[in-house]
Amino acid sequence: MNIILLSGGSGKRLWPLSNDIRSKQFIKIFKREDGTYESMVQRIYRQIRKAVPGATVTIATSKTQVSAIRNQLGDGVNICVEPCRRDTFPAIALAAAYLRDVKGVALEEPAVVCPVDPYVDEEYFEAIARLGALASAEDVNLALIGIEPTYPSEKYGYIIPREQGATSAVEAFKEKPDKDLAREYIAKGALWNGGVFGFQLQYICEKTQELTGFSAYEDLLQQYESLTKISFDYAVAEKEERIQAMRFQGKWKDLGTWNTLTEAMDEQTLGQALCNETCENLHVINELNVPIVCMGMKNAVVAASAEGILVSDKEQSSYIKPYVDQIDQQVMFAEKSWGSFQVVDVEEASMTIKITLNPGHGMNYHSHERRDEVWTILSGRGKTVVDGMEQPVHPGDVITIEAGCRHTIIAETELKIIEVQLGREISVHDKKKYKLDR
Amino acid sequence: MNIILLSGGSGKRLWPLSNDIRSKQFIKIFKREDGTYESMVQRIYRQIRKAVPGATVTIATSKTQVSAIRNQLGDGVNICVEPCRRDTFPAIALAAAYLRDVKGVALEEPAVVCPVDPYVDEEYFEAIARLGALASAEDVNLALIGIEPTYPSEKYGYIIPREQGATSAVEAFKEKPDKDLAREYIAKGALWNGGVFGFQLQYICEKTQELTGFSAYEDLLQQYESLTKISFDYAVAEKEERIQAMRFQGKWKDLGTWNTLTEAMDEQTLGQALCNETCENLHVINELNVPIVCMGMKNAVVAASAEGILVSDKEQSSYIKPYVDQIDQQVMFAEKSWGSFQVVDVEEASMTIKITLNPGHGMNYHSHERRDEVWTILSGRGKTVVDGMEQPVHPGDVITIEAGCRHTIIAETELKIIEVQLGREISVHDKKKYKLDR
Repeated sequence: MNIILLSGGSGKRLWPLSNDIRSKQFIKIFKREDGTYESMVQRIYRQIRKAVPGATVTIATSKTQVSAIRNQLGDGVNICVEPCRRDTFPAIALAAAYLRDVKGVALEEPAVVCPVDPYVDEEYFEAIARLGALASAEDVNLALIGIEPTYPSEKYGYIIPREQGATSAVEAFKEKPDKDLAREYIAKGALWNGGVFGFQLQYICEKTQELTGFSAYEDLLQQYESLTKISFDYAVAEKEERIQAMRFQGKWKDLGTWNTLTEAMDEQTLGQALCNETCENLHVINELNVPIVCMGMKNAVVAASAEGILVSDKEQSSYIKPYVDQIDQQVMFAEKSWGSFQVVDVEEASMTIKITLNPGHGMNYHSHERRDEVWTILSGRGKTVVDGMEQPVHPGDVITIEAGCRHTIIAETELKIIEVQLGREISVHDKKKYKLDR
Repeated sequence: MNIILLSGGSGKRLWPLSNDIRSKQFIKIFKREDGTYESMVQRIYRQIRKAVPGATVTIATSKTQVSAIRNQLGDGVNICVEPCRRDTFPAIALAAAYLRDVKGVALEEPAVVCPVDPYVDEEYFEAIARLGALASAEDVNLALIGIEPTYPSEKYGYIIPREQGATSAVEAFKEKPDKDLAREYIAKGALWNGGVFGFQLQYICEKTQELTGFSAYEDLLQQYESLTKISFDYAVAEKEERIQAMRFQGKWKDLGTWNTLTEAMDEQTLGQALCNETCENLHVINELNVPIVCMGMKNAVVAASAEGILVSDKEQSSYIKPYVDQIDQQVMFAEKSWGSFQVVDVEEASMTIKITLNPGHGMNYHSHERRDEVWTILSGRGKTVVDGMEQPVHPGDVITIEAGCRHTIIAETELKIIEVQLGREISVHDKKKYKLDR
């Protein structure tokens, strides 16, 4: 059994915790039993490992998310990297080809594609396991999960099943309707399309060949940019005759906005927050290391990160995107495969950042043309390589790196550094990478 | 004419912009004509210079505020420093003795004491100038300003005048009343006690001698800690027979809470803020360099500084003090006579701060026992002295200072530095000062 998690989006709907480089699925907002917090992607990955222990999990995502996924899930997970964004059909086609050509998965094996961001319980993954079996049935090409609607939502596509049983052939797919139409659909027994598709690998590989003219992983990778942007629903599901929908009545929430996300939070506050007793239905998510004090706030959400602060009425929070789009804020915080960085000060001709390197990890060996750098080691042990010269480093050590100088730092234990960048043209693009002979 | 401005308080009512070391009078919140912002103390000082150009201004304050006053008003202003807090009578007694003994002001000269924090127009200072003249009249020992009430406030003391003219003898002083009693007072023509007192210097010096047993500046300074904490109202005003109140009907606002302070703001937002059209009666004050986005917020105030974030219903904002008292937040930002500093990162065994030195200013020559420091010069020119060795510094220079090492840095132009402090026991108290031979 293969599970392909689609990890897309670089949404701003959960700004300031999500932004251009941190998608919502990486925000650590759900409390684990041990009191620490996990993100959507960590939660779903943990749930799958438990509910479908034998499954091979592959994450289909873009280049920009690889670091965050490695940081949060470790090196064990398969990642199929899309060279650029091309909607869900190309992403699924590439992931299927990756499983066949790179991972050597047999064509008759079932695979289930699933978005990375629904908020669900384990029974959802048990349904996914059954969906894999359903997709392997002789008269079925494609199987999908239909979520039992809880209200006439205008946000989802609808599946009209032919019968009302646990599984059924599909009568029709319906676009996002208005509220009245949604009520009509629901009266007819319609289900929300949760974007979960089960199939045998062979089916998708053939579809890919049919629709793109090729199906080999290397070919898809090479030609990816030229593929048509099209969703899997349009390209495949809505045209398929031998399709079955499996009714799912368990917990399923789409945590796309602050309004819905906060409903899934176990606690009213996360991080340093103090709310007086006149606050009602207030959620505070604070990633900063200074306190937030709330007085008399009702039906509101307050979220703060190094990128900015949101203070919103809960209902209004669904409409933040155009406002956040106006903000031209440089990235202030990022999780990388090797650790994380945070901008702590910005001046006209300097930028100061704190870098945390995970044990055993290092930066790329690189140089800058237009800036000097000064590293002060705050804590941890490791070594630097500067223009080929290796040197062990300890807390308090200072390393000065002139423009043009090749450099890296490799952590033995967790290593924290203050990096002062000095120059009039500081840019993330001013970076040349080199191979490091080790 | 002498004006004594009482600059007290280290209030938390305007947290996070005011805190233990930054009083509300230093928050730069009022827009000047040139588009820059000024604080309460800057505004009142500017207004006095314009409305009473000949007046000598002395600021009576505690040690902790001297740096901020020098930073905001420059070196020209007289400062009379209270060794510790002892309420308004000792503060006024010390300031009067300072004028007589240190500044050589003649005993028959009038002086007016005035709080530093009312939000007023120039006519208020014209009234103050007239109060000085009134205090010099033969049959008057003490003159004070009574503010024409605009509502039955429970926050102020009331003055009951004998007559309803522009000036009048005082029938009685009344404590802060409840609303009904306040209405009664107002019906009788009562005025708010604005804490403004005019007198001839001699009068206060004699009162001081009478009440404390001495009146010389040096004696008061030496014995200050042993003086009884008592307000000028209780100690002097309420017992004085030859007292006149001057009615003031102009603009007068007490900006003690966010609710009242925001009423005096010219703009809805200060700093980076984006409010959508569903916001109403919202004020945002943002001292951070990341944006605040507000959606659907009504009758609210949002204030953010390096110390923390307040999100409050306006009316509720009057009650923040006990909540803020619970916060044990280290000082993250401070204005000093030589410039300012801001904490940018705190780790277990390190703290990183950005220091800005004003041109011509330097730190004290000092050493630390329990921490090493690393300075990276971001911008500007100046010189360091490290264990007696002078060296010019430029952007990009790095200076490492081991524990025990004496050091200072003196700015020629504005100088910005990143200072990394390294040690397990970092404390503001770990500082030994030395005389620098220059």
